[in-house]
Amino acid sequence: MITSIGLENVVVAETDLSLVDGQKGQLVYRNYWARDLALEHSFEEVAHLLWYGHLPSADELAVLKEKLAGEREIPFHIKSIIDAIPENADMMSVLRTAVSALGTPDHGWPPTMEQVISLTAKMPTIIAYRYNRLQNKEPKAPRADLGHTANYLFMLKGKEASEAQVRALDAYLILTQEHGLNASTFTGRVVASTRSDLVSSITAAIGALKGPLHGGAPSEVTDMLEAIGTKENAEPWLRAALEKGERLMGFGHRVYKTMDPRAVALSKVASSVAQDDPWLDLATHVEKVALKLLEEYKPGRGLNTNVEFYAAAVMRSIGLEAELFTPSFAVSRTVGWSAHILEAANNRLIRPQSIYTGTIPAE
Amino acid sequence: MITSIGLENVVVAETDLSLVDGQKGQLVYRNYWARDLALEHSFEEVAHLLWYGHLPSADELAVLKEKLAGEREIPFHIKSIIDAIPENADMMSVLRTAVSALGTPDHGWPPTMEQVISLTAKMPTIIAYRYNRLQNKEPKAPRADLGHTANYLFMLKGKEASEAQVRALDAYLILTQEHGLNASTFTGRVVASTRSDLVSSITAAIGALKGPLHGGAPSEVTDMLEAIGTKENAEPWLRAALEKGERLMGFGHRVYKTMDPRAVALSKVASSVAQDDPWLDLATHVEKVALKLLEEYKPGRGLNTNVEFYAAAVMRSIGLEAELFTPSFAVSRTVGWSAHILEAANNRLIRPQSIYTGTIPAE
Repeated sequence: MITSIGLENVVVAETDLSLVDGQKGQLVYRNYWARDLALEHSFEEVAHLLWYGHLPSADELAVLKEKLAGEREIPFHIKSIIDAIPENADMMSVLRTAVSALGTPDHGWPPTMEQVISLTAKMPTIIAYRYNRLQNKEPKAPRADLGHTANYLFMLKGKEASEAQVRALDAYLILTQEHGLNASTFTGRVVASTRSDLVSSITAAIGALKGPLHGGAPSEVTDMLEAIGTKENAEPWLRAALEKGERLMGFGHRVYKTMDPRAVALSKVASSVAQDDPWLDLATHVEKVALKLLEEYKPGRGLNTNVEFYAAAVMRSIGLEAELFTPSFAVSRTVGWSAHILEAANNRLIRPQSIYTGTIPAE
Repeated sequence: MITSIGLENVVVAETDLSLVDGQKGQLVYRNYWARDLALEHSFEEVAHLLWYGHLPSADELAVLKEKLAGEREIPFHIKSIIDAIPENADMMSVLRTAVSALGTPDHGWPPTMEQVISLTAKMPTIIAYRYNRLQNKEPKAPRADLGHTANYLFMLKGKEASEAQVRALDAYLILTQEHGLNASTFTGRVVASTRSDLVSSITAAIGALKGPLHGGAPSEVTDMLEAIGTKENAEPWLRAALEKGERLMGFGHRVYKTMDPRAVALSKVASSVAQDDPWLDLATHVEKVALKLLEEYKPGRGLNTNVEFYAAAVMRSIGLEAELFTPSFAVSRTVGWSAHILEAANNRLIRPQSIYTGTIPAE
């Protein structure tokens, strides 16, 4: 019997899906470097890799794209449910509720690839539907001729995004599809271990991703960058925050002790699509100052820029509001969540131990 | 680094809430035997014990009962959402969706006792509302003059239940309020460790409880008892099932290697309120035959009657359909889930490890 409150030293699964090596700054998806996949492949190709175990042939890719495109529409009753949720609810709460409402008696045990494809296809539609309704715009119907990422941007913005914008978001979504046993993926696996259905697992995972210690960071990066405002204000603002003992959002990662490989790849993509973007210019400067100050205030802690920092930069540069950051993260991580749930389908029930710190009454 | 797929030998929390000793067949809630609490106290008293750390004074109990009674009504938009869910959805999916829809921006970090009371109060109302709507009956408004259990039965049945029925269900609900780090409670704690909100944690826990390896067993006990039908058919039916290698539902527990103490207490309550009940008569006989055959087919495995077996007996004897069993379990376990979430509010992020079984590409 060992004690491990955060489970950081406990292996709870063998997986073919990914290797996250925080010491070396490596991320592998099923025998490929995630960074190469992000730079050379599409959302659908990488999803195929994670779900089916290999990159698709041209025919396999065409089939998967057609299946995903064919499952994008959300049923009328899901729209009614989204519309019934009060306007002040955050998008993650809306997504959690709408995905939960997709549960039907067909969603039994074990989960199927068809269910996985259907749920993955509907996530962007749910978000875009709500987003447009809140802005009193007519939600755009999904377009079957566009890829997953391009269609998501089309539904959000009401017009086709540029190829560069699609490429930037695609890279972000690929790099966040899968990341080992993070809290939300682990949540999904714990739920699946009871032989509950796919919808229950994904709903639970969305709730975990909602937490600021997990998926909540990107919008906090934006808040920070907006609070800083100008390059001149970066050093005084960051120094004041560190003096008050505050955490700087976008720096440091539980796992990566060196550069986050996703941040490295995203940085490449970001700079390729967002030259002369004032917001990205600010972000680059803030990063430089923050790394310098972190070394001064927390020497030897190895706090490097993490994926959330660049995610905020990329998503802002293509015009996605902060409130869409974590939901967009859910759009991509659904691929990894569902790949884990398929992989773990016959694992045993997860039921850890606790130590009772009270007293035992007399018999 | 250790490997533990089911985490059965890993302590992930220190807790004041309960001791589950499977070897000795003991269950303690905060310094009291759960069996004594079930026989001598009410749902609200035991909830007070778990939430606040001590059994309430008369004044404290009056305050808690008033707060719970005052929070039972569900908002109009929750009713709309429940009504929008297709009729063929199971009750656990409805409960998961309706609870998720209760999430508002007020549900931030950390969760509060007020949120816990409000959510606990609304669970029976959600279930009873849906149940009545499916039967084309006008849902009964909650009655503030009734206790938690009596009001639940009143809303379900449309009339006040007998004192004996309330007592039987109250005992069941008390005995299932808390049970260490079972899969759903652990799910709730993993979600809470990201600093997500109470609603996200409870929604996730409901999804875990939906799984047949966790909360799904009671209705399968009923299915089994209905398939058996008569006392004469018990031995041939059970023998045939065991010959085919099937599990007998209602027997054996991951944790208890001797009698489940909850089953012992419920057996007392059941026999006190359900004399001459033909269904209970059958259940008692099936239990006897099943235990004999389990010793014959799986000798030395220590497969005893578990709480689900008696839960099915008690709930059927008071006229609750099988589809209400797991949702009713959720009504009570919400107390334990929320007590754990309050207790774990500042724990560190739960993020276990995995072993990658693929290859690492060349640099």
